[in-house]
Amino acid sequence: MSALSLQITAKAGMARTGILQTPHGAVPTPAFMPVGTYGSVKGISPRELKEVGASIVLSNAYHLWVRPGDKRIEALGGLHRFMAWDGPILTDSGGYQVFSLSDFRKITEEGVRFRSPLDGQYRMLSPEVCIGIQESLGVDMAMAFDECIAWPSSREDTKKSTDRTTRWLKRCMAARTKPNRTALLGIVQGGFYKDLRIEHAQEIVDLDLDAYAVGGLSVGEPQEQLLEMVEVTTPYLPVHKLRYLMGVGYPHDIIEAVIRGIDIFDCVIPTRNARNGKIFTTKGIINIKNARYKDDQNPLDSSCSCYTCSNFTRAYLRHLFVSNEILGARMLTLHNLFLYQHLMALIRETIPKGVEALIRLREDVKNWMQPLSS
Amino acid sequence: MSALSLQITAKAGMARTGILQTPHGAVPTPAFMPVGTYGSVKGISPRELKEVGASIVLSNAYHLWVRPGDKRIEALGGLHRFMAWDGPILTDSGGYQVFSLSDFRKITEEGVRFRSPLDGQYRMLSPEVCIGIQESLGVDMAMAFDECIAWPSSREDTKKSTDRTTRWLKRCMAARTKPNRTALLGIVQGGFYKDLRIEHAQEIVDLDLDAYAVGGLSVGEPQEQLLEMVEVTTPYLPVHKLRYLMGVGYPHDIIEAVIRGIDIFDCVIPTRNARNGKIFTTKGIINIKNARYKDDQNPLDSSCSCYTCSNFTRAYLRHLFVSNEILGARMLTLHNLFLYQHLMALIRETIPKGVEALIRLREDVKNWMQPLSS
Repeated sequence: MSALSLQITAKAGMARTGILQTPHGAVPTPAFMPVGTYGSVKGISPRELKEVGASIVLSNAYHLWVRPGDKRIEALGGLHRFMAWDGPILTDSGGYQVFSLSDFRKITEEGVRFRSPLDGQYRMLSPEVCIGIQESLGVDMAMAFDECIAWPSSREDTKKSTDRTTRWLKRCMAARTKPNRTALLGIVQGGFYKDLRIEHAQEIVDLDLDAYAVGGLSVGEPQEQLLEMVEVTTPYLPVHKLRYLMGVGYPHDIIEAVIRGIDIFDCVIPTRNARNGKIFTTKGIINIKNARYKDDQNPLDSSCSCYTCSNFTRAYLRHLFVSNEILGARMLTLHNLFLYQHLMALIRETIPKGVEALIRLREDVKNWMQPLSS
Repeated sequence: MSALSLQITAKAGMARTGILQTPHGAVPTPAFMPVGTYGSVKGISPRELKEVGASIVLSNAYHLWVRPGDKRIEALGGLHRFMAWDGPILTDSGGYQVFSLSDFRKITEEGVRFRSPLDGQYRMLSPEVCIGIQESLGVDMAMAFDECIAWPSSREDTKKSTDRTTRWLKRCMAARTKPNRTALLGIVQGGFYKDLRIEHAQEIVDLDLDAYAVGGLSVGEPQEQLLEMVEVTTPYLPVHKLRYLMGVGYPHDIIEAVIRGIDIFDCVIPTRNARNGKIFTTKGIINIKNARYKDDQNPLDSSCSCYTCSNFTRAYLRHLFVSNEILGARMLTLHNLFLYQHLMALIRETIPKGVEALIRLREDVKNWMQPLSS
């Protein structure tokens, strides 16, 4: 029996709402996962994650393996207990991070041998190691170990890499020991070649994974190419399984991908941008460093009900930011996460109203992406 | 009429409990003020300050004057509104900070001319400017602008400096325009000379300020000298006015000073030490960086009920700290502040039980200062 089940509750074209059941509770979809790479969403406590409306978080198997160690976390009661988050957790395999260490890694059929920048140690990350880590962590959803290739890459290189990803996926499946506790998600690769995307989707759907991710995107390509690859892939994914678009994105990317059939997202943008003073609002983007906010008595977003907007002016948040007061980054992060969860709630409310309502929401969200005019 | 009133509710020797009434509410004393130099207690939100039990916070007039500007804060509704703290606020004048700029300042009878390290501008801080800033901020308690001298200093230099502090205090008093809204505290100086301390206390008590601080201490001297100066001064301060020991200190310093008649404290130690991984507990001091905590499933302090101790293990907090995850510094700060407020609550509960009970508490608190043994 699978550790996951998805009940579809409404549809509008390819878009759908649903309830994902996991070993640690339910996730209403479409959903956004805040990123807690090292076992903490930067600056945000678990109770604040709940308060902003997050029902699931993402962490990173590779990073936790290197430090503090997956076996240590297992001995301490698992990742949920470790980070005091009792809701569902998905871990990225860390393949992407290892491939990014371009000067320090060697890829073979066995896996990736690399030298950790953290401790200088040589390690081998393979499909088997990757599943072992994620099962030790005890997460609800594990990502398969896949090969990540650069954008752009040739058709031939992409095909070779995608075939290896399939072989590695089969090894991931064979390595599982706790399928009832930790679901396994297969990742559709195929680069930016439609036929390879379709072919790969069909191949791995045949393997009957718990859910499917669309990977290898959001690597620097224009938005149209990203969306084209999503659009060509989702029709080949099973209707009753979760669809995850990895590493995406901005609010307008998310709604476009929902329209193309995606259920769940993760991205560092709301948290990382907040730490750099870039704030999302329903009226446009704010750069809090800007001198125009020095005397601004308004909250970041007057229609937002987050703790930050309920208590602090733009003038104060700017003061904290330019004074390097960590409460600033923290309160800005809280707001951005709240706004992302607000976006997902709007999407979930709108899908049952049909395609036209969803298109109107998409036009609204495009306006969120403009610089704030007042 | 004074902006402050203090009702003494119990005594044990020189120690006393009381209720301080301010324009922004009551403060049970003895009390500890978390330090929010730039208008924020580093990493901690106003609701968390309430949660840990703080009823009053300290900020710094000099720093807020330089950035973002006291007039700006006034136009934004005052410091309480700016930092979203509706309880009482005391501001330090910033004299100490200006005197610390030893290469960039010139002291005259008029005040201190200095070059701000922040913007390179020349500015003059004087008694009149200092009162103006604090009244613009709209704080409940303003500190007089006093001259700070180094430890050790000669008797003659100390006497001269103390006399100037008295003249400056009179100018502070004359500069006040909102005595009902912002109380003024005089600061007893006199260096480390008992007779000068007594003489200065008598002089400024005659000026009938709203409350009195003991200043010029905690500047590098041994604890015995600090306590000796407190002990010699408090008998000369009015019984029915608040007594504030500036910049003190460690838990064992605080209880010793309470025993000698002090009502209120501020110090960066709980917050700064937390950011450096130094944690206070009722069983001893923890350095969270220590490898011995790598696998430690215990909370920081098993008898503590703060959010941090209710949710996180030492192993997780160590992981956050060594990974430079800001949630680590934040959760450690929250705990240290909670422990300081717990100390003050213990002191307030113990004073009505009498001197012997207070001495027993002092012996307990000495044990807090040992390295944690288990």
